[in-house]
Amino acid sequence: MLIAAERINSSRKRVAQAIEAQDGEFIRNEARIQTEAGADYIDVNAGAFVGNELECLKWVVEMVQAATKLPLSIDSPDPAVIEGVLPLLKRPPMINSITLEPARLNGILPLAAAHGAKVIGLCQSEEIMAESTDDKVRLAGQLVESVTRAGVPLNNLYIDPLVYPLATHPQAAMAAMEAIERIMKEYAGVHTICGLTNISYGLPERRLINRTFLAAAISRGLDAVILDPTDAPLFAALKAGLAVAARDDYSMDYIAAFRAGRLG
Amino acid sequence: MLIAAERINSSRKRVAQAIEAQDGEFIRNEARIQTEAGADYIDVNAGAFVGNELECLKWVVEMVQAATKLPLSIDSPDPAVIEGVLPLLKRPPMINSITLEPARLNGILPLAAAHGAKVIGLCQSEEIMAESTDDKVRLAGQLVESVTRAGVPLNNLYIDPLVYPLATHPQAAMAAMEAIERIMKEYAGVHTICGLTNISYGLPERRLINRTFLAAAISRGLDAVILDPTDAPLFAALKAGLAVAARDDYSMDYIAAFRAGRLG
Repeated sequence: MLIAAERINSSRKRVAQAIEAQDGEFIRNEARIQTEAGADYIDVNAGAFVGNELECLKWVVEMVQAATKLPLSIDSPDPAVIEGVLPLLKRPPMINSITLEPARLNGILPLAAAHGAKVIGLCQSEEIMAESTDDKVRLAGQLVESVTRAGVPLNNLYIDPLVYPLATHPQAAMAAMEAIERIMKEYAGVHTICGLTNISYGLPERRLINRTFLAAAISRGLDAVILDPTDAPLFAALKAGLAVAARDDYSMDYIAAFRAGRLG
Repeated sequence: MLIAAERINSSRKRVAQAIEAQDGEFIRNEARIQTEAGADYIDVNAGAFVGNELECLKWVVEMVQAATKLPLSIDSPDPAVIEGVLPLLKRPPMINSITLEPARLNGILPLAAAHGAKVIGLCQSEEIMAESTDDKVRLAGQLVESVTRAGVPLNNLYIDPLVYPLATHPQAAMAAMEAIERIMKEYAGVHTICGLTNISYGLPERRLINRTFLAAAISRGLDAVILDPTDAPLFAALKAGLAVAARDDYSMDYIAAFRAGRLG
């Protein structure tokens, strides 16, 4: 299970303040705690700094790479920002994200191919918000085609089926889970990834919904996730979800997490 | 979602002591707290009293019916015990349980048909312990045939796919979940039910595994469960699982549970 750790995001007020104030120690610490908590990629986002996103993101990248050896997930829709950051990276990153919109697709895929980057592809086009399972799977097929045509290997593609809020779309989680199951079967080698915050938007006890959805989605084959690995109940649900989904032989990883005090 | 509440079971030491001492207030209180916590059926078991099960169970039934208006789930493999208890019941019960073993099947089904009882059918025969999805679904088909032939309507049958411990059977939860999904599709009108304790046998933080499995199984169509409704995190996972599974329109029941202070 690949974990892209989401805390260094400028939509969080404290992170935006740290970027604003060039508080490097805050950013480095966020990188360290997520690394220790089991992240595989550290997501970095400076999207709140409109007009100045590239400069801010370069500084964040520098701070994070000073604190961790993990590769980064470059979180921007803007090909120019991604292109500007790529030369700084010490390891091939994940690019978060492309959609089927031509400008974004055509701007980003050549960069991903040239740098050996993993790419998150959202099931979203200019024409439709894919709400049904069928629409999500259809857009996933288009992503597979576009990405492989651009020279990015299928196993570097992480398809995000997109999850709408349950509060307004009661079928949203099931549609995403069924899409994950079908995508993993129809395109052997591709990966699926999800963020967990949309699903619970507008509901109470959001983290309960988030971790319940995560564990259920893992049982459908979800093999990557964007989350905060320092969220203890969420991390515990992830480990339990993998054991339940027969993806943790003899629950050895689950038991190791227990011994490390991370299930309680 | 039908909840059969499991606390009044003589395998619990405190319950066995209460039966032994004819401590009616203890039993009545167990019935009351489970009723208030959202039970649909109160399971009663006196199986620990070998040779004296019927007399003990009759007493338990009397105590429980004095404390709640809910129907009972009569938890015994013994047709004679079930037959002896049935005349005392104020409402049609659930019978927990039959298997495909002829003595149990032929002893219990006529009683169920005559009393309009619901029946839990375990995916277990004399020949096999059904560990694979295919075996579970095959035995489910045999249960459907036997039960309907005996005059019990299909919608009074609750099929338990049986869940083996993950610690020894890493595929156990997935096999059960996939069986639930197939059984609910192939036999429209039938129900599925599970207990939650086997799955986590031998693992640490058992309740985390139990509730993770429950939520994932709900997303496969599980529509009944044997559990302790007073277990707060388990009850919260149940409600979140129903919302995620698109079985709680606009999460209204989830929000009601939040307002009642039952998600925290």
